[in-house]
Amino acid sequence: MQSALQRPSGTRLRGVFSPVMTPFTADLAPDVARFIDHCTWLTGQGVGLAMFGTNSEGNSMSVAEKRRLLDALGGAGVPLHRAMPGTGSCSLTDAVELTRASVEAGCAGALVLPPFYYKSTGTEGLFRFYAELIERVGDARLRVYLYHIPSVSGVAITPELVERLLAVYPEQLAGMKDTGGDWAYSQAMLQRFGPRDFDVFAGTETVLLQTLRAGGPGCITATANVNPSQIVALYDAFSRGEPEAQLERAQAALNDSRAVFARWPLVAAMKTAVAHFRHDLQWRVVRPPLTALGQVEAESLVHALQQAGFSMPGL
Amino acid sequence: MQSALQRPSGTRLRGVFSPVMTPFTADLAPDVARFIDHCTWLTGQGVGLAMFGTNSEGNSMSVAEKRRLLDALGGAGVPLHRAMPGTGSCSLTDAVELTRASVEAGCAGALVLPPFYYKSTGTEGLFRFYAELIERVGDARLRVYLYHIPSVSGVAITPELVERLLAVYPEQLAGMKDTGGDWAYSQAMLQRFGPRDFDVFAGTETVLLQTLRAGGPGCITATANVNPSQIVALYDAFSRGEPEAQLERAQAALNDSRAVFARWPLVAAMKTAVAHFRHDLQWRVVRPPLTALGQVEAESLVHALQQAGFSMPGL
Repeated sequence: MQSALQRPSGTRLRGVFSPVMTPFTADLAPDVARFIDHCTWLTGQGVGLAMFGTNSEGNSMSVAEKRRLLDALGGAGVPLHRAMPGTGSCSLTDAVELTRASVEAGCAGALVLPPFYYKSTGTEGLFRFYAELIERVGDARLRVYLYHIPSVSGVAITPELVERLLAVYPEQLAGMKDTGGDWAYSQAMLQRFGPRDFDVFAGTETVLLQTLRAGGPGCITATANVNPSQIVALYDAFSRGEPEAQLERAQAALNDSRAVFARWPLVAAMKTAVAHFRHDLQWRVVRPPLTALGQVEAESLVHALQQAGFSMPGL
Repeated sequence: MQSALQRPSGTRLRGVFSPVMTPFTADLAPDVARFIDHCTWLTGQGVGLAMFGTNSEGNSMSVAEKRRLLDALGGAGVPLHRAMPGTGSCSLTDAVELTRASVEAGCAGALVLPPFYYKSTGTEGLFRFYAELIERVGDARLRVYLYHIPSVSGVAITPELVERLLAVYPEQLAGMKDTGGDWAYSQAMLQRFGPRDFDVFAGTETVLLQTLRAGGPGCITATANVNPSQIVALYDAFSRGEPEAQLERAQAALNDSRAVFARWPLVAAMKTAVAHFRHDLQWRVVRPPLTALGQVEAESLVHALQQAGFSMPGL
């Protein structure tokens, strides 16, 4: 698996990705048909699929449930060449199984949480976990993105860990998602590893412009589930070299849209919005331990969306 | 599933339990034969089996791997009427599958972590998770023990949660493991819920005597993997009503034994001790992200054990 080759830039992922929300049936089973619909809509909006992430309730599902959703996407012809599913697990064997299935399904990358039950294993333990995963999947197509979300996982992705993994797996270690909420960290990672073909994605669109200016590849963000076109528009405007003032205005508008949702628990709020715009109450269902918005909260949210002139075109 | 009946005291678990360490092969697969040997030894020492716990590297294994170990124990005739496997998971479906398998295998209880990826779901979300689990397993034999280990899981078991669950599932909600490291919390839980047949186990033998004096049922403790007879002896001495001074001396001796191991990462240290006393190096293997002791550390540990006169009789 070792290689001195760097990845050809044409295969590198860029742009806007969404941790695809998982619709559930009334019985709390993953709802395959609604999932395919949502993925189809997202890819149509120019958003890459980062299904099975934090805001996908990815850790609320078994590997078997996630594999069934993955298989269904393939069967429905949803394009996966820009997909980056979450495949991490505290269990090495579960992480290997889902990562391998993702590669075999044609997904471009795998976004891999550290084994988050274990808080004090240090760089050595995390290195061994990721190394073992890469070796066991044993597929030259594998592209691993490390998932830095310490406020939730309790386990940070450190520069030392990236350094050690890059030294051994320069081809497989493709980048990371940075949901640290600390711009000093983000900047340091972008500066240190960006020039070495290690792509540091922002974990929220609120720092998309900053990230792109620092040479980053884009963002993977929850609200791309509900606001994809506006986020993709900023990415495209930056790529075209639009004037700074225009980019700043677009970033401010993104922040305003996100702020509407941030008043409620995010997954429940976004599902309520999708339920509203799709006229489909089933979309409100979340799997425990998450809880759906109550009727009063849901009405407040819809009112706030209307006040903000928020819409989901193309639904 | 609802019932106003309280559990008959004869079926309640008491005593000393061990989160059974999981031996792995060189290829990191769970080692069934060594697992059965270790479980057999532990039950022979009077220790109940709390396999698949934190110090079992339980979260490092898939549900399928844990079910194979459970089936193997049943097949080998290892008694499970005092077993309390860890069956929690962030994934509701995984938690249901392993909990149901444990009940069907004849295990007396299930020690269920909260869905630990989710840090801010509050009492309502946790209540719904545990309620859904109990309803889905749907077996009158089920006895759930809540697992409070906030420094690792990031999710506390609060009195409010226990209160809500007890109100609906007085028969199924049997107790908890308290690894909070906060005696004020322990005392409050013992006083409030002990009289209602909710058994608050200590999460370490260092507070075993305190817990028993406060009416608690015993302890579930990592070091019962290596020091079972000494811990069981204190429990038995308390049950026989031995003089206080003698109990205090026994507790102090337990603390001294534990302190020897506490100088190193606990699972790696305990596995090294078992490898030493069993003359079986294979026992040193841990699954990533844990890391085994290096040779120098292992020799220091063995030296410390010899200095302390530590032994594992009956191996």
